[in-house]
Amino acid sequence: MVSIRTATYEVHFNAGGFEAINKHLKDARYSKVFILVDGNTRQHCLPVFMANIKTDHYFEIIEIAAGELHKNISTCTRVWERMSELNADRKSLLINLGGGVVTDLGGFVASAFKRGIAFINVPTSLLSMVDASIGGKTGVDLGKLKNQVGVINQPRMVLVITEFLKTLDRRQLNSGFAEMLKHGLIRDEDYWNALKKRTDFDGMDRLIYDSVIIKNQVVLKDPTEEHLRKILNFGHTLGHAIESHFLESDARPVLLHGEAIASGMILEAYLSHKIAGLDKQALADITNTFLERYQKVEFSPEDITHILSLLKYDKKNTHGNVNFVLLNAIGDPKIDCQVPDEFYEEAFVYYKEQ
Amino acid sequence: MVSIRTATYEVHFNAGGFEAINKHLKDARYSKVFILVDGNTRQHCLPVFMANIKTDHYFEIIEIAAGELHKNISTCTRVWERMSELNADRKSLLINLGGGVVTDLGGFVASAFKRGIAFINVPTSLLSMVDASIGGKTGVDLGKLKNQVGVINQPRMVLVITEFLKTLDRRQLNSGFAEMLKHGLIRDEDYWNALKKRTDFDGMDRLIYDSVIIKNQVVLKDPTEEHLRKILNFGHTLGHAIESHFLESDARPVLLHGEAIASGMILEAYLSHKIAGLDKQALADITNTFLERYQKVEFSPEDITHILSLLKYDKKNTHGNVNFVLLNAIGDPKIDCQVPDEFYEEAFVYYKEQ
Repeated sequence: MVSIRTATYEVHFNAGGFEAINKHLKDARYSKVFILVDGNTRQHCLPVFMANIKTDHYFEIIEIAAGELHKNISTCTRVWERMSELNADRKSLLINLGGGVVTDLGGFVASAFKRGIAFINVPTSLLSMVDASIGGKTGVDLGKLKNQVGVINQPRMVLVITEFLKTLDRRQLNSGFAEMLKHGLIRDEDYWNALKKRTDFDGMDRLIYDSVIIKNQVVLKDPTEEHLRKILNFGHTLGHAIESHFLESDARPVLLHGEAIASGMILEAYLSHKIAGLDKQALADITNTFLERYQKVEFSPEDITHILSLLKYDKKNTHGNVNFVLLNAIGDPKIDCQVPDEFYEEAFVYYKEQ
Repeated sequence: MVSIRTATYEVHFNAGGFEAINKHLKDARYSKVFILVDGNTRQHCLPVFMANIKTDHYFEIIEIAAGELHKNISTCTRVWERMSELNADRKSLLINLGGGVVTDLGGFVASAFKRGIAFINVPTSLLSMVDASIGGKTGVDLGKLKNQVGVINQPRMVLVITEFLKTLDRRQLNSGFAEMLKHGLIRDEDYWNALKKRTDFDGMDRLIYDSVIIKNQVVLKDPTEEHLRKILNFGHTLGHAIESHFLESDARPVLLHGEAIASGMILEAYLSHKIAGLDKQALADITNTFLERYQKVEFSPEDITHILSLLKYDKKNTHGNVNFVLLNAIGDPKIDCQVPDEFYEEAFVYYKEQ
């Protein structure tokens, strides 16, 4: 597949990806190369990655604990300390080999190490391939608040190696698929319809490619999220609050990101129906598509109260308002929508009754 | 004094500074305004600052502990948490009112909060007026390693209010004066000669203004420190290592930044004499000027060994080399110099014998 050009770097696919990075390592004269992995990607992805790298560079491997719980400043500090011990300098390169936690955290670590070193993202989850590969968002969580600390900074390149998808179970693949479905909802009804029909995850390369294209088109038009780029947050205002809420307590089940935003998209589709003119049929289509694929979440009244209290931390908020992205129709989003309080509860009632 | 224009913002002086910020607060529609202070600036500078601010904005004050020891990631995390509690959003403004610790740390806090909010620096120490006010370096220390974590990001504006200098004691003023002397050494022999003659700190406004001009000229020509900007690091390669070393142990006296780089400049002037052609007379001039103003530091053999071991963490290093800025003559620097190991010890012997 032809590489996709963003404003400042390229996303390369499969064999083309290894070709590109091998050429880059030869040309760029890095002083040292570090690879950030977690326990899972070290075991399942690193051997495949290294087998395809042809260079004289000596690689240092830095491992962090797997999982969203470790996507925090303490983990960054440990990586910064480890890099200092290993004599990383400003001409060093950090390759982030992993899912969204590794690429988001690793991007921030590189961006703030000695005021910024180069990094390359090699996403290994479907979620990070279609979402984190484009846009330059880096960051970590602050306590329960997702991505509160981070910067916008672009990698030197991104490699999408779909072979890594074989290392994922069905639940993880489904989590990434939720972001692909979102790309359809906010930008392309035909793509939404094509995705809906899929019952397995074989031969997904072209659909992944299309998702990267959609996200890239949006980010190119609005890199700093002043207007259009906000549409990528459809389902994420409530979705992030839901994800944070379930992350907070060991007693509650952990929701994967895609599972949380799948609920968020049903709830925000309902709000779209009430406020932005999304018709009944489209609401039903969205609801059924997500409920067929993602287990329904049980929200107690206490859960809902707390989730709504978390909305005030949403990064899109300004001047005390919670700003939603809603849908006028499938493929036709509307940004900066304000929602009267009474519709929140209604949305959760709607979700429960399905 | 006429405001000084950098690539992206202006440095305003005294009454012009308050005029500029009052206009900005009126025009910019911030959702919330936060002021970062330490215990000292809260007591001595905040009342003066607030008395001159005319706006309807409600200000939230966030206080951190004073001193370089607290310029670390833990302090950042506490400020980020406090800002989250106070509902800071992306349209919030952070005003950093303090010395280099507050402006460096506050700049990083703002740059990484929700992927970046606006900030304004109001330096209250002579050091931060002449040094940190220009260049966009933000950051914090990592353990003993100075400024290992940070980004380059520009404030919306900088206010140099020289009235704040009245809150400083002679030792602190001298610390900032070392950076002014450095500006002479790397860029302007006449300025160096003018500064040398000063025996007190009254009526310094014009000299401070000239220092900001010199630093701005350098940074404008090389914002990302690829070549020319490195000259600002004269005295800082050994100076930073000395500062880190003395910071490490409660048993050792604490050196102020300017005191550490004053020693660093004598040592690096000696290296300049050995390697870059700085003549004997200039070396003596530099040595005497600093020794008249700054107490001589006692370095034990163990101190020296450890200081030299810290050189490997210098941010200018690349490919395993320690890169020095040396002087061909006063006002004529040379970047990317490598120094044979044996000259390090010699330089410390020279320093001791003065």
